[in-house]
Amino acid sequence: MTLGRLNHIGIATPSIERSVETYRTLLGATAIGAPFDLPAQGVRVCFVDAPNTQIELIEPLDDSSPIAGFLRRNPAGGQHHLCFEVPDIDAAIADLTAKGATVLGQPRIGAHGTPIIFVHPRDMGGLLVELMEQPKDH
Amino acid sequence: MTLGRLNHIGIATPSIERSVETYRTLLGATAIGAPFDLPAQGVRVCFVDAPNTQIELIEPLDDSSPIAGFLRRNPAGGQHHLCFEVPDIDAAIADLTAKGATVLGQPRIGAHGTPIIFVHPRDMGGLLVELMEQPKDH
Repeated sequence: MTLGRLNHIGIATPSIERSVETYRTLLGATAIGAPFDLPAQGVRVCFVDAPNTQIELIEPLDDSSPIAGFLRRNPAGGQHHLCFEVPDIDAAIADLTAKGATVLGQPRIGAHGTPIIFVHPRDMGGLLVELMEQPKDH
Repeated sequence: MTLGRLNHIGIATPSIERSVETYRTLLGATAIGAPFDLPAQGVRVCFVDAPNTQIELIEPLDDSSPIAGFLRRNPAGGQHHLCFEVPDIDAAIADLTAKGATVLGQPRIGAHGTPIIFVHPRDMGGLLVELMEQPKDH
């Protein structure tokens, strides 16, 4: 595996609407997608484009969402994960597992419609890393 | 102000050497700079390149470093800040201040040799945002 593009930075927020307003007003974000639900993951997300990467705003759909737990510990919100692209998710899982890292759960379809997995923060210096198979038209 | 390039993601670590080894071994990072000290900020830093941005590993130089406080709360390390580029740091400060945001301290020279400031996380949904004047040869 070679370190790939940073696809996005995942940022937990109690309110996508308020966060969008903050990024628009204070930082001058202009390319802001429409929020959409990912019910299988218990979240609503919204992508904000920077010139070279994206910010993924993540709001819990309900109290059982993993993001709800994050917000109980960080009520204002904050940085949740980093997502790097890989050419092939199965090859990435095999590589990480062979090196002794723990991949959390099975691959599932992420916000960009391709398979994703998460690596245990214990293996990554406290950082939650998502790996995302890069779209084929990339 | 228009949202600029994500220059880097700042990641606090108790050991740059161990983190470099993790990024190299598990994620396949290959472009890894030499660590260097920023004594005025109480930190040692090391840049790891992804294709479209950089990871800034940050280790405290001593117990009085702000990063030392972060590591007391997050002993394994973790995401510390996001740095976006701006064309002119003084214009960015004036803009943010006019909009009621709090800029922390005075501009100082950052790890890339240009002026930087931090925006209070209270204004940014719990996120610590660094703004960095883009290098003139950029």
